[in-house]
Amino acid sequence: MKAEIISIGTELLLGQIVDTNSRYIAEKLTEFGYDIHYIKTVGDNFKRIVSSFKKAEKRADLIITTGGLGPTKDDLTRKALAEAVNKDLYLNRELKEDIEEYFAEHNYNITKNNYRQAYIPKEADSIPNENGTAPGIIYENKNSLFICLPGVPLEMKNMMENMVIPLLKRRSDDFIYSRTLNLFGIGESSLETKIADILKNQDNPTLALLAGKGEVSIRITAKGRNKNELKDKVKKKEREIRDQVGRYIYGIDDSSLPSVAGEHLNNKGLTLAVAESCTGGLLGHRLTQIPGSSNYFNGGAVVYSNNSKVNLLGVDEILLKKKGAVSRGVAGEMAEGVSDKYNSDIGIGITGIAGPGGGTPEKPVGLIYIAIKMVEKESVWQLNLKGDRKYNKWMSSQYALFYLLKLLRKI
Amino acid sequence: MKAEIISIGTELLLGQIVDTNSRYIAEKLTEFGYDIHYIKTVGDNFKRIVSSFKKAEKRADLIITTGGLGPTKDDLTRKALAEAVNKDLYLNRELKEDIEEYFAEHNYNITKNNYRQAYIPKEADSIPNENGTAPGIIYENKNSLFICLPGVPLEMKNMMENMVIPLLKRRSDDFIYSRTLNLFGIGESSLETKIADILKNQDNPTLALLAGKGEVSIRITAKGRNKNELKDKVKKKEREIRDQVGRYIYGIDDSSLPSVAGEHLNNKGLTLAVAESCTGGLLGHRLTQIPGSSNYFNGGAVVYSNNSKVNLLGVDEILLKKKGAVSRGVAGEMAEGVSDKYNSDIGIGITGIAGPGGGTPEKPVGLIYIAIKMVEKESVWQLNLKGDRKYNKWMSSQYALFYLLKLLRKI
Repeated sequence: MKAEIISIGTELLLGQIVDTNSRYIAEKLTEFGYDIHYIKTVGDNFKRIVSSFKKAEKRADLIITTGGLGPTKDDLTRKALAEAVNKDLYLNRELKEDIEEYFAEHNYNITKNNYRQAYIPKEADSIPNENGTAPGIIYENKNSLFICLPGVPLEMKNMMENMVIPLLKRRSDDFIYSRTLNLFGIGESSLETKIADILKNQDNPTLALLAGKGEVSIRITAKGRNKNELKDKVKKKEREIRDQVGRYIYGIDDSSLPSVAGEHLNNKGLTLAVAESCTGGLLGHRLTQIPGSSNYFNGGAVVYSNNSKVNLLGVDEILLKKKGAVSRGVAGEMAEGVSDKYNSDIGIGITGIAGPGGGTPEKPVGLIYIAIKMVEKESVWQLNLKGDRKYNKWMSSQYALFYLLKLLRKI
Repeated sequence: MKAEIISIGTELLLGQIVDTNSRYIAEKLTEFGYDIHYIKTVGDNFKRIVSSFKKAEKRADLIITTGGLGPTKDDLTRKALAEAVNKDLYLNRELKEDIEEYFAEHNYNITKNNYRQAYIPKEADSIPNENGTAPGIIYENKNSLFICLPGVPLEMKNMMENMVIPLLKRRSDDFIYSRTLNLFGIGESSLETKIADILKNQDNPTLALLAGKGEVSIRITAKGRNKNELKDKVKKKEREIRDQVGRYIYGIDDSSLPSVAGEHLNNKGLTLAVAESCTGGLLGHRLTQIPGSSNYFNGGAVVYSNNSKVNLLGVDEILLKKKGAVSRGVAGEMAEGVSDKYNSDIGIGITGIAGPGGGTPEKPVGLIYIAIKMVEKESVWQLNLKGDRKYNKWMSSQYALFYLLKLLRKI
């Protein structure tokens, strides 16, 4: 089955926004076995939208469009679809009532142009919009199935999840099962090399390498009629991958280093506090992105100045002078100090030079020390990062979480 | 002048990555007055790439492609361009030497397929790649100008900046001058309403509203032959906008709330410390994203637990019990305590309920207090945010920086 995705909106052609909708839709269609030949962006131009629709109808079984369903004159998708498939537009009473209801509920004043959204081509169906006024449109003829969705990502996704994906599922004889392995500490190209044989022989399940922010994921997707068989296939493939790169895999599906570390802390009933110098609060911020983190995260100290390292965490002033703020010893004292002050089972200390300034030949930008104090034991790691300030901060927080996870897995 | 952008790569059609290249190129071409009719994505399929190139040649003066220039069999852009414009591919000696040099320099082993990248169509020119091995291609005939760039964003951007933009500049009689106003505290739709008259009458300069993360920007762009005239035009438009929404404008071009607040602190020689409860370190993290922030940022305390509020910052235990951690008074004591402990001129305290848990009818999720202690004076604001955990954290940090800026502007 061939599919085509068409994004509609001059703002996309002007480069004012990135088209994230197409990626999302492409991913879902791929999962359902559709073969996407083109993704196209066209502006709010009637002639060009109609021409794109007509071309798509000739070459694809399924066409999903986003955008152009709003209430203004620039919103041409409804009219263009009617023209392309040669059907008249008509005022759908139910849609009219839905729109009136929406405006009444939100205490908005309804204006004449809002009624534009109640028009759809004859023989078309509408898709309700739970998050806005623009209904989606489904139209099918002997050539193709057109699905027109709003351009606002939240509204589009909602319709995809509630209506389009169930529809595609009903039309497909196959089930899809996929599982994502999240890895840290290995680059995309080394990963590709290490699992080259597994990648080469992929068919069903298929494998996709996805590069994240300082980490990488492998998505395993199987397709078939028997659900249990799918799961077994994916499991088998996962075992093959784990044999090669298991030690880099930290979590599954939508897990993240902070969420996995948090789970371990929760399960073991341990509490954590962090002392951050070069990361400036990023580690605390990431830990507290996880709902319920107050169960195990007691807090932290951002000790940017030397004074604060001494006054707040009790770092030894002589050591600080002798070895400098960026040193193994100070990282250790920060970890110890913060676990003490925050009355926590575990303390993490991070000190380093994020850059661009502050580097010396002995202590260059990117030199980072991470210390973890846990159950009377202290471990310190040294990093030599090669990025800019933002990268160095991010990767320091990544490594800190990864090392924490390593230690938590041992106890 | 009409332009078309073509992204090449099956990974885009599978939804594995978002096509950010097209947005970047579209933005640049728009600045140079090109009218983009289509942005298209096509997979690593020879027939479909050739067909897309031929169609683009018919309807556009300038075609920029990204992707498909790598060394593998899947990289078909060179061959497809040669086919579409009916020219033979040949091995370019200079490119061959460049590639050999690159591999020697990086101590990589050169393999046979790497030489694929040294082939270009006859009469085409190449664009050097400073960050990789894939050279770009420029080919012009009487119909169109083709520019083929690599798909790796860093390599693509580098070629755009060093070669393509200067080339477009030389071909254009016009200069471009643009200035971006960054606003906080006003939504995109209210902004649109408030400057509706200015938006309606835009021609040169043109205006673009850009929605950011909890903020919004207005880009003013003028085009013309006289540089000084352009600047005057943009200035005049900026004054019109400032008359309507000046109080929301906090910065210009690539400034951010942390960078503008940082500049003020730097200029006034003031130091800052922050006490964060619900933001969990985000405010410190954002302040320390700015190079040189150690000049004015002393550090902070993430006081997630009640104990840490009392022990580290000296928040009054009786007040904490009586009013609760999320209260005006506790925010004030946190601000005062942290400015004291970190020996800073200014202290910020943030306490609130980020959600999803922890809300009560009296203190619902999204209730946030922000206190700023500055020069013996203390101000406290209350927010009632309506988002999820991440949004509430982010907006709390945005408001804290905005209020800080407000106070700094007064002294």
